[in-house]
Amino acid sequence: MASQNFAGVLVPVLTPFTRSGEPDTGRFVSFCRFLLDQGADGLAIFGTTSEANSMSGAERMAMLDRLIDAGIPAAKLMPGTGACSVSEAATLIRHAVGHGVGGVLMLPPFYYKGMDDEGLFAFFAGVIDRVGSAALKMYLYHIPPQTVLGLSLDLVGRLIEAYPQTVVGLKDSSGDWNNTAALIERFPGFAVFPGSEVFLLDGLRKGGVGCITATGNVNVPGIRKVYENWRTPQADALQAEITLARKTIQAYPMVPALKRIVAHFHSDPDWAAVRPPMTALTDAQSKALLADLAKIGFTLGERRREAAE
Amino acid sequence: MASQNFAGVLVPVLTPFTRSGEPDTGRFVSFCRFLLDQGADGLAIFGTTSEANSMSGAERMAMLDRLIDAGIPAAKLMPGTGACSVSEAATLIRHAVGHGVGGVLMLPPFYYKGMDDEGLFAFFAGVIDRVGSAALKMYLYHIPPQTVLGLSLDLVGRLIEAYPQTVVGLKDSSGDWNNTAALIERFPGFAVFPGSEVFLLDGLRKGGVGCITATGNVNVPGIRKVYENWRTPQADALQAEITLARKTIQAYPMVPALKRIVAHFHSDPDWAAVRPPMTALTDAQSKALLADLAKIGFTLGERRREAAE
Repeated sequence: MASQNFAGVLVPVLTPFTRSGEPDTGRFVSFCRFLLDQGADGLAIFGTTSEANSMSGAERMAMLDRLIDAGIPAAKLMPGTGACSVSEAATLIRHAVGHGVGGVLMLPPFYYKGMDDEGLFAFFAGVIDRVGSAALKMYLYHIPPQTVLGLSLDLVGRLIEAYPQTVVGLKDSSGDWNNTAALIERFPGFAVFPGSEVFLLDGLRKGGVGCITATGNVNVPGIRKVYENWRTPQADALQAEITLARKTIQAYPMVPALKRIVAHFHSDPDWAAVRPPMTALTDAQSKALLADLAKIGFTLGERRREAAE
Repeated sequence: MASQNFAGVLVPVLTPFTRSGEPDTGRFVSFCRFLLDQGADGLAIFGTTSEANSMSGAERMAMLDRLIDAGIPAAKLMPGTGACSVSEAATLIRHAVGHGVGGVLMLPPFYYKGMDDEGLFAFFAGVIDRVGSAALKMYLYHIPPQTVLGLSLDLVGRLIEAYPQTVVGLKDSSGDWNNTAALIERFPGFAVFPGSEVFLLDGLRKGGVGCITATGNVNVPGIRKVYENWRTPQADALQAEITLARKTIQAYPMVPALKRIVAHFHSDPDWAAVRPPMTALTDAQSKALLADLAKIGFTLGERRREAAE
């Protein structure tokens, strides 16, 4: 099995938008720095939580350029490069690999439904062949609640076999522990990241390598505690804490809720803005969410060290 | 209700690809001419049947440029400009409107699921406001089997009310006649096109204006006969003929089947190529399809007039 570049707590970084609805690169750079300072092991920018598909490819590439210009280490980045066409996906990946990113996170062609493994294999193979770079490390993105087009175990196995140096991992956002466990069992050495910290401890015990989780945007320190202490007697209690925080937040629409929490704890109301078709939480929802979090004693973790300016 | 530009039989034009998988603009221009010569009332290029989402925005815009350069009348074109982001959709629409197209066909932001009408309204409004052109005529594209994100009657009504000069019609590919009938009843003067010729006659009798149908790629003359004769005593028999052809073809995966039929009747085997994740019909499927068509006496219709070269 090929070497790969990520383990631990990866954050699909929220994308801030300006009041006029444009990607806010200044706030984005600052927030990426903040997450790394908090201990994030990697930044899975342009994921679902990032509203990546609410941005054009050109907007995403421009934001990646700005992150690199600002000195965010490319090796820590796993940009989402999902697109429904081999051509668009290859363009996004070439750009990211050109910057030296640690890997890319790759959706299936989500417009389509009921495609067989033959067609999906041809899609991923077509993208990898077009990019044609030995530097590419691809993480597959299995998220059937959004795509309604999953990646079967057989398809994953076929891709690993055909591209052992390239297809090195997978984010499993199915929410189905049995699928995560089956991936870990069937493909030793393949990097499996559950898409929620709810499965972090179970995943680590089984052979997973960490998690890529939306709530990392507001809880890196808590989630990292589980990662750092998973072999200790406190592991289950630490996991229970982060599971409680997750369940409290996900009682609300996830992305607007996370943005509201960031706006609150960073004292920056503009952070709450989302791009359509998402809608911001109502005032009543915002109050209820913050009250629910206060009840469980939730705060944004302390910075581990001063931000490197 | 605002004036709008289309009625009759519109074809979501198949997109030919070269052997190396690139959009084949030469064959595309010729095929668009052929369809107009056959009597197509409009060309809904870059729809689902066109594998539009298997092409990048740049590829689609380049192909539209080539059609216009080749003299295909812009007023006959209704390009699909669907994208999941307001920014990308606005870019595609501005480009199309700049060429003077008769209208654009607009998907909802299909990556997302379970979005409410508030968010979807904000998406369409955001796109229309960004484009900011009085020349824009938008047709909504309701195709829940692909998007798993439908357009409710209330949302359609709200968009018509907010943008009466812009939101002028809808393609209903739900396959649900009750929904088509409800749209026609509730929004008099709004141009409703069933997404299949199976509902053409029923639609016309109810107040629909035509259809936009995949099988138009291989059967414009047959479908146009129903459109031209729907008030005559032969209407039901003519409808039965085109319904039989449709059902024969859709027993196979639709896009690969249509491309195989074009390849056969145009004696041009390369036409059968699809882009992943679609896969071409197997040899056995191809033979069976052509045999099924022979059984019902199906041939590509005669050209109505010589191609205008």
